[in-house]
Amino acid sequence: MSGRLTIIGLGPGADELMAPEARAAIDAATDLVGYATYLARILPHPGQTVHGSDNGAELDRARHALRLASAGHNVAVLSSGDAGVFAMASAVFEAIEHGEASWRALDVRVIPGISAMFAAAARIGAPLGHDFCAISLSDNLKPWALVLRRLRAAAEAGFVIALYNAASRARPWQLGAALDLLREILPPTVPVVFATAISRPDETIRIIDLAAATPDLADMRTLVLVGSAETRRIARDAAPCWLYTPRSAAS
Amino acid sequence: MSGRLTIIGLGPGADELMAPEARAAIDAATDLVGYATYLARILPHPGQTVHGSDNGAELDRARHALRLASAGHNVAVLSSGDAGVFAMASAVFEAIEHGEASWRALDVRVIPGISAMFAAAARIGAPLGHDFCAISLSDNLKPWALVLRRLRAAAEAGFVIALYNAASRARPWQLGAALDLLREILPPTVPVVFATAISRPDETIRIIDLAAATPDLADMRTLVLVGSAETRRIARDAAPCWLYTPRSAAS
Repeated sequence: MSGRLTIIGLGPGADELMAPEARAAIDAATDLVGYATYLARILPHPGQTVHGSDNGAELDRARHALRLASAGHNVAVLSSGDAGVFAMASAVFEAIEHGEASWRALDVRVIPGISAMFAAAARIGAPLGHDFCAISLSDNLKPWALVLRRLRAAAEAGFVIALYNAASRARPWQLGAALDLLREILPPTVPVVFATAISRPDETIRIIDLAAATPDLADMRTLVLVGSAETRRIARDAAPCWLYTPRSAAS
Repeated sequence: MSGRLTIIGLGPGADELMAPEARAAIDAATDLVGYATYLARILPHPGQTVHGSDNGAELDRARHALRLASAGHNVAVLSSGDAGVFAMASAVFEAIEHGEASWRALDVRVIPGISAMFAAAARIGAPLGHDFCAISLSDNLKPWALVLRRLRAAAEAGFVIALYNAASRARPWQLGAALDLLREILPPTVPVVFATAISRPDETIRIIDLAAATPDLADMRTLVLVGSAETRRIARDAAPCWLYTPRSAAS
């Protein structure tokens, strides 16, 4: 029997936001591969082998999964959010391109998920209601100058910006530098959302003016959304404001 | 009893890609509001009132839903994909901001969904594996010059680009003009994906070089993905190629 490799987005955290197709693929797998923190969200059934690993080392993890599938296993590779967004799907296809020729004949599928930026946006209104972009702030795999160039292009063109990999212990200064650049371009009142552990029990959301946004509001589990000049706040009595970006734009 | 308004993303089409939280909110609603084509994907239960409407007129539909909620109904407003992405969530909050003061006190929630661009990407690999953006090609609500400015900024900065509202009978020339602009900036071999009716029975996917991409490949149900210069093709024997955008970028 030939194996199968399914790359699965678990969604932001809550079981109620995981697609039934993802759940079914996890249940059918013989082997679960992923970052240990994400695997901990799954209760394996007897007979399933769990292959947890540290964060980082995505390419090694991908190759391990491909070898298991080549040996006939039904392998599920798990990512948080959507597996195709700064997550394992790209690593698996990179491993295939540069790996054994036989890997191209494997049955590889990707099951999409609800990405962190959409889960965060939904909690506060509709800040991604118009043109937007997603940028990874990690300079582990691209030059920092390229990150800054993309931030500048996106802000000048009026995109709402979702920042992935905004902060970690190994990358402590990048978010502050990014916010400093954005303050040169965008109005000081543009709202910045720090959304941490969305849909998990310890979820926290802070909405702050760009002028006052500081990087200490983010950790490894934080998705940062930076509004555009068009993004609107709706004030409410005794409740957090709503944010939305209108469907129309003037210029 | 005060009413409730829940704005729900149904996902791209298949029931297996709809979040359980969305399903539960639909089941609990007394009234279903949406574009008739999306409502047709839901089998209402006895006692639910279905308020279908034509495409367009989002603001009227939003106000209708808000009035029902104000009158004590439990209203579900349905969108395809993610409700916050070029869909009903932004229209509802726009209606709230400019509408009756009492609407701000309503219980309004947004339930995210799997957006068309992630569903399309998952079918062919991981083309959104690195920095990307989403742009609506509709010039109904913004000047065409702004669309072109954002396309140029995104292509020059190396973003993969998802085009929403790429084509319709009322907007027949915009996609061709967008592709012409992108051909001035990007290499001719950049892959362009035309993904139509993703996860539905009549799903079709075409992957074509930018040099050869033509707007007749898109209709109202088509999501167009334009790769970056970094996007890679993985050729396979007797199977469509995979596309992915590497996690790393050089410049």
